[in-house]
Amino acid sequence: MATNITNTNSIDPRDVGTPDDWIPRHPEMVRLTGKHPFNAESPLSLLMDQGFITPNPLHYVRNHGPVPKLHWDTHRLIVDGLVSKPLNLSMNDIEKFPYKEFPVTLVCAGNRRKELNMIKQSKGFNWGSVAVSCAIWKGVPLNYILKLAGINLDDCINDPRYICFIGADKLPNDYYGTSIPLEWCLNDINDVILAYEMNGERLPPDHGYPLRVIIPGCIGGRMVKWLSRITISNEESDSYYHYHDNRVLPSEYDVDRANKEKIWYNPNYIINYLNINSVITSPAHNEYILLSNYFNNNNNNNNQMYTLKGYAYTGSGNKITRVEISLDDGKTWILAKLNQPELDHPVVLKRGINPIPRYWCWSFWSLTISFYSFIRCEEISVRAWDATQNTQPRNPTWNVMGMMNNSHFRVKINTIVQGSEFRLIFEHPTQPGNLSGGWMVKSEISSPKLLTFSKNSELSTNNSEKIPTFNINDVAKHNNEKDCWIIIDQKVYDCTKFLKNHPGGISAILINAGKDVTNEFNDIHSTKARDLLKNFYIGNLVVSHKAKM
Amino acid sequence: MATNITNTNSIDPRDVGTPDDWIPRHPEMVRLTGKHPFNAESPLSLLMDQGFITPNPLHYVRNHGPVPKLHWDTHRLIVDGLVSKPLNLSMNDIEKFPYKEFPVTLVCAGNRRKELNMIKQSKGFNWGSVAVSCAIWKGVPLNYILKLAGINLDDCINDPRYICFIGADKLPNDYYGTSIPLEWCLNDINDVILAYEMNGERLPPDHGYPLRVIIPGCIGGRMVKWLSRITISNEESDSYYHYHDNRVLPSEYDVDRANKEKIWYNPNYIINYLNINSVITSPAHNEYILLSNYFNNNNNNNNQMYTLKGYAYTGSGNKITRVEISLDDGKTWILAKLNQPELDHPVVLKRGINPIPRYWCWSFWSLTISFYSFIRCEEISVRAWDATQNTQPRNPTWNVMGMMNNSHFRVKINTIVQGSEFRLIFEHPTQPGNLSGGWMVKSEISSPKLLTFSKNSELSTNNSEKIPTFNINDVAKHNNEKDCWIIIDQKVYDCTKFLKNHPGGISAILINAGKDVTNEFNDIHSTKARDLLKNFYIGNLVVSHKAKM
Repeated sequence: MATNITNTNSIDPRDVGTPDDWIPRHPEMVRLTGKHPFNAESPLSLLMDQGFITPNPLHYVRNHGPVPKLHWDTHRLIVDGLVSKPLNLSMNDIEKFPYKEFPVTLVCAGNRRKELNMIKQSKGFNWGSVAVSCAIWKGVPLNYILKLAGINLDDCINDPRYICFIGADKLPNDYYGTSIPLEWCLNDINDVILAYEMNGERLPPDHGYPLRVIIPGCIGGRMVKWLSRITISNEESDSYYHYHDNRVLPSEYDVDRANKEKIWYNPNYIINYLNINSVITSPAHNEYILLSNYFNNNNNNNNQMYTLKGYAYTGSGNKITRVEISLDDGKTWILAKLNQPELDHPVVLKRGINPIPRYWCWSFWSLTISFYSFIRCEEISVRAWDATQNTQPRNPTWNVMGMMNNSHFRVKINTIVQGSEFRLIFEHPTQPGNLSGGWMVKSEISSPKLLTFSKNSELSTNNSEKIPTFNINDVAKHNNEKDCWIIIDQKVYDCTKFLKNHPGGISAILINAGKDVTNEFNDIHSTKARDLLKNFYIGNLVVSHKAKM
Repeated sequence: MATNITNTNSIDPRDVGTPDDWIPRHPEMVRLTGKHPFNAESPLSLLMDQGFITPNPLHYVRNHGPVPKLHWDTHRLIVDGLVSKPLNLSMNDIEKFPYKEFPVTLVCAGNRRKELNMIKQSKGFNWGSVAVSCAIWKGVPLNYILKLAGINLDDCINDPRYICFIGADKLPNDYYGTSIPLEWCLNDINDVILAYEMNGERLPPDHGYPLRVIIPGCIGGRMVKWLSRITISNEESDSYYHYHDNRVLPSEYDVDRANKEKIWYNPNYIINYLNINSVITSPAHNEYILLSNYFNNNNNNNNQMYTLKGYAYTGSGNKITRVEISLDDGKTWILAKLNQPELDHPVVLKRGINPIPRYWCWSFWSLTISFYSFIRCEEISVRAWDATQNTQPRNPTWNVMGMMNNSHFRVKINTIVQGSEFRLIFEHPTQPGNLSGGWMVKSEISSPKLLTFSKNSELSTNNSEKIPTFNINDVAKHNNEKDCWIIIDQKVYDCTKFLKNHPGGISAILINAGKDVTNEFNDIHSTKARDLLKNFYIGNLVVSHKAKM
């Protein structure tokens, strides 16, 4: 049953004071990187309630920095590089061109990263299992624009060509940009478009207003938002983010070794297409079965059945061909029922079904089983298969960027006995961001760790002088670009000199200047960042209440 | 170091008396389906000795029946169906057309099936890990022929089109044929050709002389040999083999359920493209390390190292992007060195590298480690990854056709202590066909089972009369189409009435009429075939020596 999700006009209190304080955002979105930049996913059950199409306010968001404030009337798209007819197009120009409109499931390459972070912290923040959403996108086919610029497929035959996309967002390491092989865009069946509408509305600012790239079957990271420039080149994009993001490095690489060996530039490790993935959404995390309720209704068979549900997707336009459930840790697998609403969707039917089918959307699966199956079962696993006859691995493969986790999604079944009540409680592996819960989560990672201090503390300075102490009001005064202190885990740091070097941008620190940023820091920073932090340590916070261990 | 493999002109004694007794075959090929039809793979180490290109005599062969005796001068290729200009081409016509020549790795969808058969017998015979080979194929681009017949890509836009291939081989269920979507063939970058040369020679009879389809990235089963007809249609091929072969059914399906539910026609279960796979070839099966040899040469570091080697491949033109080795059952993985000779091959360099790279060939991998690593190690596993960021599952998934096994290839390390000698012996999971050995092989499945008989035998007839007995000379007289007896596991069967219904063809039985076919039968027949056999039981063989249990 779909919850009625409408656009909101109000500014979330958490955005006040950030560069994004002009963008209305849905209050239920789970924020994953503190206040800013905005990276968020919908609660899983809320997303599933919506069905095939995700309402715009609940679509997951991945922003690298502040959202650029662009205007329909003044925005331009430049097309240049190895083209015979460079273009400079207004949004009104673009809107007059032929268009395609169809549903596409977008997925961030970091979907399900928190499961990897529970093994070992990666460089990335804690996506749960909802870095995935599905919207109807409308836009001009990119190959139409390319032909307008004088490009044709023959140009690709003699030497490699890349199409480099540049967004209007200003980031610490210059602009956000990336590239894909030109040929992928020229082939009409791949449905690459420059989108200006999402679910029948102009794009929301968080989704690239007024123009973004949509490359079905690819990871979200290649679908540049706030698109301002397309350059055709013999070389891949020179953007920092093209090389240092959206890569899967072998497990043995940490960032230092990756930098030393320049492995970021090894073409084997780029991610373009989505891999196969599947998730259990019913039972939800913390959902439970009260055994007496089932046993009390012996005459009603419906009451004794439970319907497992979930989603599955794969990349490159491949079809999900089966989904299977195991109740015995992979020893045996039961075929689930597949529901693929894509080809029956009114928009697709109106458009006409491609005679060479490409599957750009998620599938749903369900399996109705007797609730007896749960009573002696320790966990429920899901795996999907696609038309390439590949399937998912059982175990996750940790990688330093925390990308592309597609190991079997496993829901544990725990029991609670209270008096005569016997409950089976379902537990997902993690909960997104700094939310606690999940069988992979060893401790309440979101609670501030109250430490005791001694001269031998690993964070103590080299000399054995008395460590300075500050109270919260002392720290609060140092709240600007020229004098910026922060509190993390009861320690005070003077970050003023570090501001311009912060990989996440100056503003990400400044909006919290003078404050306790323990949660924000712990959510997204690597061990390396922790080491770096030590250089700016200036003393300890004095707290008025007794610290609890 | 490549062994010099030359074509042989002599007929193998095993082919004498079969319909194929005119085809020279290499004596070292391991035969997998008894005498006839010819299905064979090279010994693994012999294949690896050849390197990137497999000599024709060692290329794996998959024949469904007798090889048709075709002639260059009289063979014709018909192109008909939904074409504006039907064609009837001679081989000389075809040879005059433009051509492409390049290496392609062919793989049977049943590669590594014996591992599945060790879990439970499938309908298929025991491929080891060498249903894979790589040759340089030369032929006319199929899209050239299609354009000649008046087809263009626009024809595909409005409704689906399939290209149906028909071979000249006569089989029990009519002709061998299959189809793929037409669009795949029209796209020049997919390199589909009609080949008339293999490694610089006319095709050998076993490989489709004079003409076969080559569809790089696909399973071998779609690359029809002895190609005689191409029909363009709105429907898929109507060949029995198109639906009842080269399908991966979910594990819960046996043949009866599959027939009942007509699941053969479910498009989700067709196999077109190869999945990701990798195999360890060094150490070979039964290779060993004598510890004293390593410890005696402490000063020579080279003597203390061992280089693991193997192959890897994937489908759809994807690139193998990494191969990893685990010595601790998948807890940790070590990155191996990748060698991808494809793009450096002289034929490819001469042709020009496709600016939109497609990978049609196997890769090789190696990893040099200290031999110390083996001493406390129980098994070596390999897994590959490809550009879609998918990898192989740890465990095999049994399916009734025994297809597409790509679970981690695991070599066990056993020890033998004899006096002061301590050996580490490597053991592959299986050996091909009815060869014994391999850690998955519980018993010597190739040895005839000598049974004792009683009235309660499951094979005994319904009445309790005395069971007739025959000696080997009695049986030998019933050796023709009108009177055909065979011996299996010391039991005598009169198959005369069954000859015309045999799924493997009349000749497959007739060449063994009057003989003991225990090995041939046990190698390839399902439980269902065993059940069927009971109907033709007429008595027991009297053996002159005492039966051993």
